[in-house]
Amino acid sequence: MLTHFNDHGRAHMVEVTDKEDTLRQATAYGSIKMATTTIQHITKMGIKKGDVLGVAQVAGIMGAKKTADLIPMCHPLMLTGVNLEFRIQEDAIGIKATVKTRGKTGVEMEALTAVSTAALTIYDMCKAVDKEMVIEGIHLAEKTGGKSGTYRREDDYGKNAW
Amino acid sequence: MLTHFNDHGRAHMVEVTDKEDTLRQATAYGSIKMATTTIQHITKMGIKKGDVLGVAQVAGIMGAKKTADLIPMCHPLMLTGVNLEFRIQEDAIGIKATVKTRGKTGVEMEALTAVSTAALTIYDMCKAVDKEMVIEGIHLAEKTGGKSGTYRREDDYGKNAW
Amino acid sequence: MLTHFNDHGRAHMVEVTDKEDTLRQATAYGSIKMATTTIQHITKMGIKKGDVLGVAQVAGIMGAKKTADLIPMCHPLMLTGVNLEFRIQEDAIGIKATVKTRGKTGVEMEALTAVSTAALTIYDMCKAVDKEMVIEGIHLAEKTGGKSGTYRREDDYGKNAW
Amino acid sequence: MLTHFNDHGRAHMVEVTDKEDTLRQATAYGSIKMATTTIQHITKMGIKKGDVLGVAQVAGIMGAKKTADLIPMCHPLMLTGVNLEFRIQEDAIGIKATVKTRGKTGVEMEALTAVSTAALTIYDMCKAVDKEMVIEGIHLAEKTGGKSGTYRREDDYGKNAW
Amino acid sequence: MLTHFNDHGRAHMVEVTDKEDTLRQATAYGSIKMATTTIQHITKMGIKKGDVLGVAQVAGIMGAKKTADLIPMCHPLMLTGVNLEFRIQEDAIGIKATVKTRGKTGVEMEALTAVSTAALTIYDMCKAVDKEMVIEGIHLAEKTGGKSGTYRREDDYGKNAW
Amino acid sequence: MLTHFNDHGRAHMVEVTDKEDTLRQATAYGSIKMATTTIQHITKMGIKKGDVLGVAQVAGIMGAKKTADLIPMCHPLMLTGVNLEFRIQEDAIGIKATVKTRGKTGVEMEALTAVSTAALTIYDMCKAVDKEMVIEGIHLAEKTGGKSGTYRREDDYGKNAW
Repeated sequence: MLTHFNDHGRAHMVEVTDKEDTLRQATAYGSIKMATTTIQHITKMGIKKGDVLGVAQVAGIMGAKKTADLIPMCHPLMLTGVNLEFRIQEDAIGIKATVKTRGKTGVEMEALTAVSTAALTIYDMCKAVDKEMVIEGIHLAEKTGGKSGTYRREDDYGKNAW
Repeated sequence: MLTHFNDHGRAHMVEVTDKEDTLRQATAYGSIKMATTTIQHITKMGIKKGDVLGVAQVAGIMGAKKTADLIPMCHPLMLTGVNLEFRIQEDAIGIKATVKTRGKTGVEMEALTAVSTAALTIYDMCKAVDKEMVIEGIHLAEKTGGKSGTYRREDDYGKNAW
Repeated sequence: MLTHFNDHGRAHMVEVTDKEDTLRQATAYGSIKMATTTIQHITKMGIKKGDVLGVAQVAGIMGAKKTADLIPMCHPLMLTGVNLEFRIQEDAIGIKATVKTRGKTGVEMEALTAVSTAALTIYDMCKAVDKEMVIEGIHLAEKTGGKSGTYRREDDYGKNAW
Repeated sequence: MLTHFNDHGRAHMVEVTDKEDTLRQATAYGSIKMATTTIQHITKMGIKKGDVLGVAQVAGIMGAKKTADLIPMCHPLMLTGVNLEFRIQEDAIGIKATVKTRGKTGVEMEALTAVSTAALTIYDMCKAVDKEMVIEGIHLAEKTGGKSGTYRREDDYGKNAW
Repeated sequence: MLTHFNDHGRAHMVEVTDKEDTLRQATAYGSIKMATTTIQHITKMGIKKGDVLGVAQVAGIMGAKKTADLIPMCHPLMLTGVNLEFRIQEDAIGIKATVKTRGKTGVEMEALTAVSTAALTIYDMCKAVDKEMVIEGIHLAEKTGGKSGTYRREDDYGKNAW
Repeated sequence: MLTHFNDHGRAHMVEVTDKEDTLRQATAYGSIKMATTTIQHITKMGIKKGDVLGVAQVAGIMGAKKTADLIPMCHPLMLTGVNLEFRIQEDAIGIKATVKTRGKTGVEMEALTAVSTAALTIYDMCKAVDKEMVIEGIHLAEKTGGKSGTYRREDDYGKNAW
């Protein structure tokens, strides 16, 4: 059953008023594929003060905070920790986001939004040299907390995220 | 050369003050893979008044308008048209966004952000029944306008987007 | 006494730091009057996938989340449930919004803002065919929780809201 | 025909790319009914430095600027003038908003949103003394500019707005 | 040690998940220097209904609520009280902001952001008559709550803030 | 005369509808004073990938885009270029912001807001090691464009900004 609908079949923000505040954590991954020469542009800039991944890091963290403003049925949450990591591969940049809170609903959407925003920011900053980048494989790897407890993805996506 | 950096190697918003206002259009695609049973949940709801794709449609359009607020180096633009379409496949929902403006910079990021936001919204509304959805293949298919003119992706991504 | 003013007679955000977190709920109503032919346009669309009320539903929920950003002295609150319902009448669409949270201040403004935003959205989507719509009777019907306890409107507004 | 729907019957942002930039102006009215004693609270405060209507004035102007963020299908517009006026009546406060721009679409929604936001702000600041206030009669009185030209409401709403 | 960086030397939102919710308060000061004739413009307006400081008051309070949206690594917080005061001096307007919450991190940034936003608003409203205003001395005077406890500035800034 | 007030003495957004679109540029400066050891923390981090000034750079650019949302009477503008520069001094970090647009009003407030937001971000990221930082000397150095033409500050502030 999709829970995001009311008795009239219309979307609503699912009621969580009586849920307990528990520690919630979620980790999401994704990547942006690009030409090897684009990767080189990024890594070369990284040696200097400003770098593409530094901007994407900030954008991802700010994006996590905007989740309830972007995703219509998301509950607002007071995030208590957001971290992003990038892994530079031969023809892609892997993105990992971990988000934490203590609250009544999980932070899966916040982690996925952080990854998406970071990927879009990388696209924006590199599109002058490479229009064929593709944002790939944005998925939830793990979440903990709440009544449903821990979820850990066990297929290839979960195992080979980076 | 990455253009989003100033003389000090730090990120800046690229100056476009003297560019001409021309008609700009961009089309982006993406998809969200999910279990066949999740697809069925979505299509069944669609028969009633409220539906997952209706909410995602609204979220995508509003997401396009938030692009300059989400992507740090994006120029604010007055969008003059945003459209999203969904294609329901056996194990995925394809998403296409077309954005238009008359302005000094292109709307590639707006189209990509619309697709991303719609995909995240679908994820949010279906995650109670399916946590293994994956957002895939977000890419630019075409852009027109500006000094660099028309770009049309010619590889498999461009040809088999849906 | 108006409480939203400090010792200097200037507006402030009323201090609620030491108030207890209690379950808060509020229900507000309103309506938008329009020509019978406009009602018919809306109900005809509703049979198809996209519909005016579906967009207004999303806008109302997102509007509730923006309340503290719109209303200067409103406290930010983590809403734990938002629902909207529409009642199609002969020459008007009734709007009802219910908002819940567990917190230090009530959600009256969130419910009223949800109704207002939904009404404005209906206006926007129908204004090409009807410029004479009027948004009417936005009022609080009931609130529960907090030190002042339950309030239930008892006059005609409360009784005949729909 | 409702224009806010695409070929698939889903909502879209109507395309206005090829419309001319013309001077656009819109005036909207509304009012908030309240107890005479509440009116007195407001007028007494007005003598001092801070006042309810001063805060509502600021909220209405900022609300006008947020219109495209609140109303899903609204085009973003660069407003070039926003003004609000209040008329204190025996048992109501009348609100009038005038908005101007030079652009491709009208500013009706911006004027209506300004009135709504000002009314909600008055409600918020007076609700400690009066929960039975009702927001009434929010309507468009006049708009000029664009292909459809000038519209001026001619019925009682148009004539007796204050 | 700067705490806002992760193991990879990149910025993150510091994790505070396990911190206790305690009462947090912060007071910040600042001022905007201006010509004596500009001060006179402001004080003359203040006699009437609308005034520069009334608008700055509203802007400061709303600015405090936007802190987590403006400052990349700030945690979102549910503010439970915001107050601003102005002191009119011969050639400057002093600004004091006090912010409270009950939460896991302090509200220093919210108080400083309130002062900054109020100062910028005064600048905006007076810049037609005085372009040489300077925003000066924005600093934290006191904070209470949290593990690090109370901090009270003891040098000249703390003593002679007004 | 303060122009931000209407005939009733209330604040309004000054009407600029009939002004010509001209090239507008503004440059603002400011600084944040801090302990020499805090400066050393910042410069040490700068050698690695993430750095305080990189985050402040992004925050300043995004802050410039939020100006009309923060400052109540500011007109929304489509910025066509934003740049920030930092100058590390012995006991302060100087901040310079340059903003450009082609429009009906100037970008002074956008440049000042960029400087303020960058300064607040530096404060936030260093406050764990230094609570006595002070944001100082935020002022307009130069603006060009518009009917009033070029303004260049000629006193010591203008000359010794860095």
